[in-house]
Amino acid sequence: MKHTEIVHALAKEASLHEITIKGWVRSFRSNRFIAVNDGSTIKNLQCVVDFENFDEETLKKVTTGAAIEVTGTLVESQGQGQSVEVQTSKITILGEADPEEVKLTILSPKRHSLEKLREQAHLRVRTNTFGAVMRMRSKLSFAVHKYFQENGFYYMHTPIITGSDAEGAGEMFKVSALDPKNPPLDDDGNVNYKEDFFAKETNLTVSGQLEAETYAMGLGKVYTFGPTFRAENSNTSRHLAEFWMIEPEVAFNDLNDNMDLAEDFIKYVLKYVLDNCQDDLEFLENRVLQEDKAKPQAERQEMTLRDKLSFVVDNNFKRVSYTEAIDILKNSKPNKKKKFKYIIEEWGADLQSEHERFLVEKHFKCPVILFDYPATIKAFYMRLNEDEKTVRAMDVLFPGIGEIVGGSQREERYDVLKQKMQAMDISEEELSWYLDLRKFGTCTHSGFGLGFERLVLFATGMGNIRDVIPYPRTPGNAEF
Amino acid sequence: MKHTEIVHALAKEASLHEITIKGWVRSFRSNRFIAVNDGSTIKNLQCVVDFENFDEETLKKVTTGAAIEVTGTLVESQGQGQSVEVQTSKITILGEADPEEVKLTILSPKRHSLEKLREQAHLRVRTNTFGAVMRMRSKLSFAVHKYFQENGFYYMHTPIITGSDAEGAGEMFKVSALDPKNPPLDDDGNVNYKEDFFAKETNLTVSGQLEAETYAMGLGKVYTFGPTFRAENSNTSRHLAEFWMIEPEVAFNDLNDNMDLAEDFIKYVLKYVLDNCQDDLEFLENRVLQEDKAKPQAERQEMTLRDKLSFVVDNNFKRVSYTEAIDILKNSKPNKKKKFKYIIEEWGADLQSEHERFLVEKHFKCPVILFDYPATIKAFYMRLNEDEKTVRAMDVLFPGIGEIVGGSQREERYDVLKQKMQAMDISEEELSWYLDLRKFGTCTHSGFGLGFERLVLFATGMGNIRDVIPYPRTPGNAEF
Repeated sequence: MKHTEIVHALAKEASLHEITIKGWVRSFRSNRFIAVNDGSTIKNLQCVVDFENFDEETLKKVTTGAAIEVTGTLVESQGQGQSVEVQTSKITILGEADPEEVKLTILSPKRHSLEKLREQAHLRVRTNTFGAVMRMRSKLSFAVHKYFQENGFYYMHTPIITGSDAEGAGEMFKVSALDPKNPPLDDDGNVNYKEDFFAKETNLTVSGQLEAETYAMGLGKVYTFGPTFRAENSNTSRHLAEFWMIEPEVAFNDLNDNMDLAEDFIKYVLKYVLDNCQDDLEFLENRVLQEDKAKPQAERQEMTLRDKLSFVVDNNFKRVSYTEAIDILKNSKPNKKKKFKYIIEEWGADLQSEHERFLVEKHFKCPVILFDYPATIKAFYMRLNEDEKTVRAMDVLFPGIGEIVGGSQREERYDVLKQKMQAMDISEEELSWYLDLRKFGTCTHSGFGLGFERLVLFATGMGNIRDVIPYPRTPGNAEF
Repeated sequence: MKHTEIVHALAKEASLHEITIKGWVRSFRSNRFIAVNDGSTIKNLQCVVDFENFDEETLKKVTTGAAIEVTGTLVESQGQGQSVEVQTSKITILGEADPEEVKLTILSPKRHSLEKLREQAHLRVRTNTFGAVMRMRSKLSFAVHKYFQENGFYYMHTPIITGSDAEGAGEMFKVSALDPKNPPLDDDGNVNYKEDFFAKETNLTVSGQLEAETYAMGLGKVYTFGPTFRAENSNTSRHLAEFWMIEPEVAFNDLNDNMDLAEDFIKYVLKYVLDNCQDDLEFLENRVLQEDKAKPQAERQEMTLRDKLSFVVDNNFKRVSYTEAIDILKNSKPNKKKKFKYIIEEWGADLQSEHERFLVEKHFKCPVILFDYPATIKAFYMRLNEDEKTVRAMDVLFPGIGEIVGGSQREERYDVLKQKMQAMDISEEELSWYLDLRKFGTCTHSGFGLGFERLVLFATGMGNIRDVIPYPRTPGNAEF
C-alpha cells in the first residue's frame, strides 16, 4: 500500500479507512503516543498505540530519530492540538536510532543553541526551526519564479565561472584546474593561465548583472536567480561568501519603474508566504517571541513576525533621495550628539549601516528606498543625472536587515559610459561586449539585485544569515 | 503613456485606441513596413508608415538593430502573416544602430552559422533562433519548479563551493583566494590550505546529491536545481564544464518509485512547453526541417519536433534491465558485424554511447530506462541488490541525446555502505556526516540527476549544447 504524507493525512476527514504513514519519531510519550514527522509539514501526526498489542522489542526501538512505518485507522483525536490521530494497528521499524548515540547529536530532545545546530548542519533540518526555515526558503524561491514568470520575464542562467574581473562588486575567488603547487609560469614568471582549463584567468561571479543586460536587450524582461560569491573576510551575521541573488533587468524601464518593480516584487513574495506558509510562520513567530523574552524590553521586536510581513505588504515604501536623507541624518539626534560612529558632516558621505538603520527603524519606521546617490560612491554603469553629480541608483532598506536591494538605471549612452570606464580604470577591451549594447539599439534600462538570504532572514525572523541557507560558506567554513 | 508589450499588442482586438510599443527594428521594407520585436514573443509587430508624414532624418535611422518607440493605432492587418498591425503616427529613435557597424555583427540580415553566432553570444539572443531557445529554456525552468512544488517537494540550494572531493562524479575545479603565484606552503612543501579563505582545500561541486540526501531525511521530498561543474577536457556537442542540474531526492522511494518519478517529471515539463511555447516551437521545428534539407535522407529526423515531444509525453518509457540490454546488444547486428567500436562480449561491460543509441534509436525506438547495473561500474552509494553483483541504478536514455537522467536507490544500510566505501577507498572521516544518515533513522530513499541543458537540447531540437545556455563554458572558453 502506498503511504500517505502527513500533510495530507492531517487534512483528511477522520475515517474508518486504513492509512499507512512513514516518518521519523519525534517523541514517544507514556508508552502510548508516538509523534511522527515526515517533513511534509511542521506538524506531527500522533499515532496512538495500545502497548499490549505490540511486541516489546518493537516498541523499544520507537525512539527519537528512528524511521518508522505506521499503519492504522485515522480517527478523530481525543487529545488537544490535533484534529485527527492514528489508531495504530502495525508498526515497522525502518531505521533505528540508538538513544545513546542520539544523545551526542542535536536530535536529542533537549534544547540546543543555533550555534550548536550549525555544527550538525546535516541533521539540523530535522528540527522544527530548521524544517520551518527551509520549507519557507523553498516557498519563497518558488514565489520569486512565479512572480517573474507571471509578469512576462524570462529566467536566464548567467555564468558562474567568469573570465571577467571587471564587475567590481567585490573580491573574487579564483577558479583553476592547474596544479596549485607547481603552476606553469610564463616568461615573466607569472602563472601562465593560457595553460589553464579555460586558457585564461577565471573567477567566480560576483553578479550576473552585465550578462543580464545583454539578454534584456534581446528578450526585454529577464531575471537571474543563482549563486554569487564574495571572497571578503566579513564574519558578520549578514554576510556569506556564497549566496543566492535575484537580478531582474528590464529594457525601457527607468529608475521609477525600477523602484515600482522592486516594491511590487517584494510585496508579492511576502504575501505568497503569508498565504502559503501559515503553520511554519506561526512556529517561527513563536520562536521569536520566546527568544525576545530573554531580551531587555528595548531590544524586543515591536511587531510579531506575521504583523511585520503584513506591514510591508500593506504599506508603501518611503522613497527618499540621498540628498534628503543626508539632511535628515545631519539634523538627527544621534548625529548631533555624536552617537553615530561615522558622523555625517557633508553631502557625498557614504551611508553606513547605522545611518540606514536610523532612517528605516527610527525616522521613517517603514521600508525606505533611497535614490540618486553621489556618482563618486557608486558603480561605473549607473546612469548619470543631469546634475552630473548624482547617479540613478537606488537601495531598498529594510528594518532589521539593512540593504536588501541595490539597483540602478543603467548608463545607456555610449560616450558617457566610455568616459566613466576610462575615469574608473575599467578595461574597455574586456568589456567591449558590454559597450556594444550601447552601440546597437541602446535604450533606457534598469535592474536590481536582491540578496535572497536577506529576504529569507526577514521572512523567517531568524537573526543570522548562516541559519537560512542549508550549508553556509563563510571565512574558515566550508563543511559538508 | 505606458508602452504595451508586443505579445500583448498581438493578442488584442484591432481597435481605434492608440498604443505605444518599444522594441528593436528587425527590418524596414519598402520604406513602409517596420517589423519590430521586443523579445516578449518571437513574432514581430508590423508598423506601417506613410513616409510622407515623417521626417526623412528619422526614417533614415530606422535600421536593423535600432531601438525605437512607435505610437499609432492598432488596426486589422491588410497583409498576410499577422492579424493586427500599427498605423504609425509617431516614431522616436531611442538608440541607433549604424548600418556599417551592424554589417560586422550577427545583427546583419544575412544568415549566420551557429558557430558565428556563438562568437557574439552577447548579441545572439536578438536572433529568432536564440530568442526562441532562451524563452523555451526559461519556460522549461519554470516547469521544473512548478512540477516539484505542486507535488510537495522542497527546493534546496546545495553548496557550490565544497570542501569534499569525495563525490566521485568527475574532475573538479579548485577554488581558492590564495596568491596563485606564491601560495603559502606547509612544512612538507605542499600548499597550505589552512591559510586559504575556507581554511581548507575547496572545489566546485560536481553534484548536490549527497547534501540533498541529508535534506530528504528531514523534509521528505526535496530537489535541487543549480549549477554543477566538470573540469574534464570533453570537447563534444554534449558536454559543458558548467551546467545546470536538477536532482530530486525522496525518502521512502525505491527504484521503481524513482523510475516513475523520472518518467512523470519529464513528461510534465515537455507537456508544459508543448502547451506554453507554441510560437517558439513552431519556429524551431521549421529550423530543424530547413537544416534537414541539407542532409542525406538517412540523417534526417523521422518526426517533427513537436511530434517528437508529443511522442515522449504520450508513450511509456521502456524499462529494461542491464542484463536484458546486454543480451539484446550481444545478439544485435552491429555487434555481430563488429560495427560497434566497442564490441559487447560479456556481462559487466560499461555501455558506450553507441550502445545506448542502438537500444533507444534502433531497437526500442522510444525512451528507455536501463536499471540494475553491475556494481563494479557504478558509484559507491548505490544500493546493492540481493544478487550482490548488481546495484539499484537507473539511466534514462533519450533518442538523439543519450543519457538524460542518471539515478539510483541509495544504499541505506550502514554496514554495507561502510564496506563499500572502504573497498572503493572513500574517506569515512570526510563523509562521516553522510554515514550519519544511516545511523539515525535510516530508510529506503532514491533520487536522480537530470542535466538541464540536455533537456533543453531535446525540447528545442538544437544540435549543440553550447547553443542552449547563454554563455557556455568549455575547454578554452570562458568568454563574457
